[in-house]
Amino acid sequence: MPEFRKDPLVERWVIIASERAKRPRDTPERDSNAALGGCPFCVGNERMTPPPVLVLADDNVQPDEANWLVRVVPNKYPALIDQAVWDARTGAPYSSMEGAGAHEVVIESPRHVINMAALSVTEIELVLHAYRRRLLFWRGAGRWRYALIYKNQGVEAGATLAHGHSQITALPMVPKEALEEIEAGKKYFASAGRCAYCDMALRESEIGARVVAENDRFIVFCPFASRVAGETWVVPKRHLSCFESGSKEDFLALARSLRETLIRLNRRFYEPPFNYFLHNNPLSEPANDYYHWHLEILPRRQQFAGFELGSGCYMNPLAPEEAARLLRDAVL
Amino acid sequence: MPEFRKDPLVERWVIIASERAKRPRDTPERDSNAALGGCPFCVGNERMTPPPVLVLADDNVQPDEANWLVRVVPNKYPALIDQAVWDARTGAPYSSMEGAGAHEVVIESPRHVINMAALSVTEIELVLHAYRRRLLFWRGAGRWRYALIYKNQGVEAGATLAHGHSQITALPMVPKEALEEIEAGKKYFASAGRCAYCDMALRESEIGARVVAENDRFIVFCPFASRVAGETWVVPKRHLSCFESGSKEDFLALARSLRETLIRLNRRFYEPPFNYFLHNNPLSEPANDYYHWHLEILPRRQQFAGFELGSGCYMNPLAPEEAARLLRDAVL
Repeated sequence: MPEFRKDPLVERWVIIASERAKRPRDTPERDSNAALGGCPFCVGNERMTPPPVLVLADDNVQPDEANWLVRVVPNKYPALIDQAVWDARTGAPYSSMEGAGAHEVVIESPRHVINMAALSVTEIELVLHAYRRRLLFWRGAGRWRYALIYKNQGVEAGATLAHGHSQITALPMVPKEALEEIEAGKKYFASAGRCAYCDMALRESEIGARVVAENDRFIVFCPFASRVAGETWVVPKRHLSCFESGSKEDFLALARSLRETLIRLNRRFYEPPFNYFLHNNPLSEPANDYYHWHLEILPRRQQFAGFELGSGCYMNPLAPEEAARLLRDAVL
Repeated sequence: MPEFRKDPLVERWVIIASERAKRPRDTPERDSNAALGGCPFCVGNERMTPPPVLVLADDNVQPDEANWLVRVVPNKYPALIDQAVWDARTGAPYSSMEGAGAHEVVIESPRHVINMAALSVTEIELVLHAYRRRLLFWRGAGRWRYALIYKNQGVEAGATLAHGHSQITALPMVPKEALEEIEAGKKYFASAGRCAYCDMALRESEIGARVVAENDRFIVFCPFASRVAGETWVVPKRHLSCFESGSKEDFLALARSLRETLIRLNRRFYEPPFNYFLHNNPLSEPANDYYHWHLEILPRRQQFAGFELGSGCYMNPLAPEEAARLLRDAVL
């Protein structure tokens, strides 16, 4: 059973998940499972994963094991367990809880596609719809407070299986990185009467130097305080606190923006390993004026080192204005 | 000129340091500089670094270019500049400052030793004395508020040169990771009337399950909420807020504890890449009752991935009790 532990002094949560040490490793560099036909995410190998919680296929087709396009399955090596109980088990100064929550895998294609930019707009759109459906499910379930959706592509970004996939964790608390944004958003709204991210999107569009691309619905830019070379955010221009409340047109536009951004990153940063994560309104909060969902993409060409871990600050060798210029001028 | 930038919403500092993109890369895996006799940290190649700010040799010898044992030089590709000015340059919502501070390299041996555990106790003791001397210098200088000392060993831990070295950054502010500990220490002291780290050292010694080694002066343990497999802290048992106030006996005992701990990690985690960093009392604060310096060692066998970056929480596949058992039972 995985276990949540909180540092006795600072606000640091850790999930001790011994089960995860057992998961197989099959990376782009040594993609032996695929070579052996044994990739657990490839079509035909559905029995290698737990039964799906969601299967998407073409619009007019009843999804089955042969025609699925996106599959969401519980993580076979979960860091969090839906049946667990979220209460303190040990006494001061040490508190720990069962690893309560959920941990799911979104298999992005039945084919063994490693680089997400190689998926079509329609395929990426379907992945986004899978995110939406699972967010709606977990919001409806009412058990957990936050869902973090993230993707690791490449060994250096922490991927252990090469076949394109993302992960969904439903958490019993709002995690620190999300909480800090939400608190800052509330404070900004209380003072300015406007959403901080709406203002940021407007301001970046005006300044222009950090903009990678922009259309009616989304602005893509390298943030002012980029942590790593090529950090890029995708932000909806219309105020929307919950990703899952987007319209059909929003998801199509997002699929286009995301695919194009990944192609730009591939062109300019040599197909970098990357992480992205969706910062969204908590499952436990209604739609509101002060928080605004967005997607943060972090290429992982450099390692986080002692400076970053010891200080919580980042050293970034590439100014976001320069990164944005490179990405903006990339040949698509 | 490097530049400090603060995220407009959350407490996140970034140093944009374009100079650092130019630094050479010479890693254990492709240690070409050394093969060519061109390692800038090896004895004989002193002209490849800026002039030293500190040189240590044997007790009765005047240090020179031939007989030095530890050398501290300004970083040739600095993220921070001592002549810079710490004031805001741009307006709301974006604030940036010149990259004010200092960035130094501690060359740990004249020989091309890559694994710190291969240094003798005496050699490690001299490295610690170099840390102490530079901390005293920067405290005396009165310009900067915090000095972070850290080490990256191995490519996966962010090292770009293989020859054993650590780094010192003098910062114009107390960085987030240190500040959170200090604030928590103050709060604990206000409530309990005791130092949180003194209490933690006592409690870990009583429980025993997470203890790796213990002597009169230091306790070495895997912390309750370990972020990564094999995370290990070295904590002085006597209350001491400032590392640089340690006695000669303290530094000898620390050199012994550190060397032994690194050997244990090598034995049990296959010579892992690692980071360590010294969390110390700020340069701008006098010695006090509520903060207690310590050294945190993080093996880097696993990558920080989308979950860690997006949530600020960590997934750790190895319970610290199990890691401590392995390290405790390692054959030295």
